Amino acid sequence: MAELIAPQVLKGFRDSLPQQEIPKKTLMSKLETVFESFGFVPIDTPVLEYTEVLLGKGGGETDKQVYRFTDHGERDVSMRFDLTVPFARFMAAHAAEVSLPFKRYHMAKVWRGENTQRGRYREFVQCDFDIVGADTAAADFEILLMMARAMDELVEGKATIRLSHRGIFNRFLGVLGASGQSVPVLRAVDKLAKIGSDAVKKLLLESVDEIGASKILAFIGAQGDYLSVLAQLEALSGGISPESERLRELHSLASELGLAHRFVLDPSITRGLDYYTGIVYETFLDALPALGSVMSGGRYNNLAALYTKQELPGVGASVGLDRLLAGLEELGLLKSVAGKSDVLILATPASGAAQKLAQLLRAEGLNAEVFLLDKKVAQQYKFAEAKGIRFVAQIGEGGVQYKDTITGEARTGLDPLAFATWVTVRQP
Amino acid sequence: MAELIAPQVLKGFRDSLPQQEIPKKTLMSKLETVFESFGFVPIDTPVLEYTEVLLGKGGGETDKQVYRFTDHGERDVSMRFDLTVPFARFMAAHAAEVSLPFKRYHMAKVWRGENTQRGRYREFVQCDFDIVGADTAAADFEILLMMARAMDELVEGKATIRLSHRGIFNRFLGVLGASGQSVPVLRAVDKLAKIGSDAVKKLLLESVDEIGASKILAFIGAQGDYLSVLAQLEALSGGISPESERLRELHSLASELGLAHRFVLDPSITRGLDYYTGIVYETFLDALPALGSVMSGGRYNNLAALYTKQELPGVGASVGLDRLLAGLEELGLLKSVAGKSDVLILATPASGAAQKLAQLLRAEGLNAEVFLLDKKVAQQYKFAEAKGIRFVAQIGEGGVQYKDTITGEARTGLDPLAFATWVTVRQP
Repeated sequence: MAELIAPQVLKGFRDSLPQQEIPKKTLMSKLETVFESFGFVPIDTPVLEYTEVLLGKGGGETDKQVYRFTDHGERDVSMRFDLTVPFARFMAAHAAEVSLPFKRYHMAKVWRGENTQRGRYREFVQCDFDIVGADTAAADFEILLMMARAMDELVEGKATIRLSHRGIFNRFLGVLGASGQSVPVLRAVDKLAKIGSDAVKKLLLESVDEIGASKILAFIGAQGDYLSVLAQLEALSGGISPESERLRELHSLASELGLAHRFVLDPSITRGLDYYTGIVYETFLDALPALGSVMSGGRYNNLAALYTKQELPGVGASVGLDRLLAGLEELGLLKSVAGKSDVLILATPASGAAQKLAQLLRAEGLNAEVFLLDKKVAQQYKFAEAKGIRFVAQIGEGGVQYKDTITGEARTGLDPLAFATWVTVRQP
Repeated sequence: MAELIAPQVLKGFRDSLPQQEIPKKTLMSKLETVFESFGFVPIDTPVLEYTEVLLGKGGGETDKQVYRFTDHGERDVSMRFDLTVPFARFMAAHAAEVSLPFKRYHMAKVWRGENTQRGRYREFVQCDFDIVGADTAAADFEILLMMARAMDELVEGKATIRLSHRGIFNRFLGVLGASGQSVPVLRAVDKLAKIGSDAVKKLLLESVDEIGASKILAFIGAQGDYLSVLAQLEALSGGISPESERLRELHSLASELGLAHRFVLDPSITRGLDYYTGIVYETFLDALPALGSVMSGGRYNNLAALYTKQELPGVGASVGLDRLLAGLEELGLLKSVAGKSDVLILATPASGAAQKLAQLLRAEGLNAEVFLLDKKVAQQYKFAEAKGIRFVAQIGEGGVQYKDTITGEARTGLDPLAFATWVTVRQP
């Protein structure tokens, strides 16, 4: 016999067992339902693309992490490292084939050869949603509203969306005479929650002077209710501007829908990335603020500039799926289960009878699993327990006995509908 | 401004627009519902694996098609080219963590650098389902039954599963004195539907003599009802055997469930692949037999032999998702739609009112989309048409007017529930 090959996966990669895959799929399905209720449609793009398409002609910090190689046709190709760049390429290629404004979502894997010591994985699922083709308060608000709706579904609304506006921040930097420093300043401010204001100030002093750093900290530290913070920001950024009016309009829309309390104006939210041009936002679970943002994004006004001269303004967000999953599991809102069967039908010498019963129960909408080996009943109960199957059915001479393994209650002679009703009452 | 980059995808790859992605997701979701109703659970594995894990220590015909490269850590890695090999590795790694028999499904992309001239894509979705840990007629039958159930859901049962048994074929070759030629003979026979019996005979003559070839053609040409074909095969393969008894048992189980007519015993079904050891089967849509098999598989009795000494017998099948999609679209059973919204709410200067109405309709379970730009009503109707949205809502001074764009019928003053009922009646 040949030598065995170790069944190992690559560093930074992982198998997804049912107890991980089921909650992940449940979460994705809940998000999809919300997205579709707003008219968002799914798309997909290839995992492999021309390297030039993904990285542009230049290069950046991400490049070193990209899985890049030469394919059979001597093409320079790379695996996608996010869903934003492929979406930009997609929009440049298909803008004429889709109806604008185009509302799309995309849930798919991406790959980054990151340092795994920080607990990061090299393969993970991203979930993005965007509206392209409308630079309006209505579009900004729709994304915010959809984020709030998703949080209704996932955590009964117990989440807060903190938002700000890149344009106001830029105006403020202009007033400060520090417009040229916007990139390092944004990066420093973005670290506030992680490293604290003293450390941010130290970073800021690399780009601006002592007074500037203090003013920046005062700006991002503005507190109070939405409208009073807005007034402070306007005062610090040279007065009322189209950007501050956009924030005011968003507040008015949220108020009209009775949702003003879900949105906090927080000027410390800036998002590190360069490409945002309008509102930016992050989402925090009220019960787990230290988890960090579970859904973040903003407005960018030139999505596909690398590929087309057509201006395609967009606004959207990305779900931190792994982080959100961890949060929901910690809060007991999404259970890690190894199976989704409602009932296990114990093995019987006449296996046709078991599948016949299973078919009747499936017709009532139940997930009915048949045990396929001739094992002791105790072992079959153990199987049910391991897979999280609450009910067990045993075919006997006097009919079918159904048992609730949690309460111990047993009933014989129920018809399939009556049993299905019982199951639904017990595990709604 | 920098030179634009062409927004093109690699040869053999493609974007999935909503009108392609929505029917694909609908099909996958229908399949998942069937799989879960039988107690099957989802898993996932990494896209990238050690090349040795995917290809073994040797090499084969597939190898040239594999996307293989050296990663940042100087590891020899490859992208998966099917879901069977990763599943074997998964079972070797996790057999102790899952409950046996393990019933799993896996829907995910795979990559093969195939010749695209034959209309093949280099990136496509595979959908596999298997039961591991039970070499029983009950397990064989469960897979067959689940395939039949899937066909109930997709084509109202109008599909036929043609099956055979590798073991009987091998016994027959033994009687013929051609056991050593089983691999080329199987490959030749597998081509019957594609190239016809004359061409198959020519291929067979490369491995066996004239009499042998004629006998093989007679064997695979056996016709009649299930039991009479079975009797012929038994006669040609040395009499009743455990393999022929297994086929008899499957027929008896199918009869018990009133499904015997869905399964045809067809000895020309052999499947080309070496690793099958038991029953093998293919599935044909009754209305489109020339489409080829849309769901195929069989029993293999040593799934993970490359990675572990533990014997893991399995039985399963793979869905030809692209082919099945094409078939369903040709039959008008799965529509290509660009959206799933039930209603488009026309733009109104007061955008809060539109989202407010949308929220009420969403609460009734409708997908309610708000048009986000200030455009002429005619253009908004065109948008609805392009996205396949049947109903339109317009907020006016006298209340909300709802319109069915197909019948032209308009109603004003409906409450959200009444409108939702109307929508459900029109597009159930």
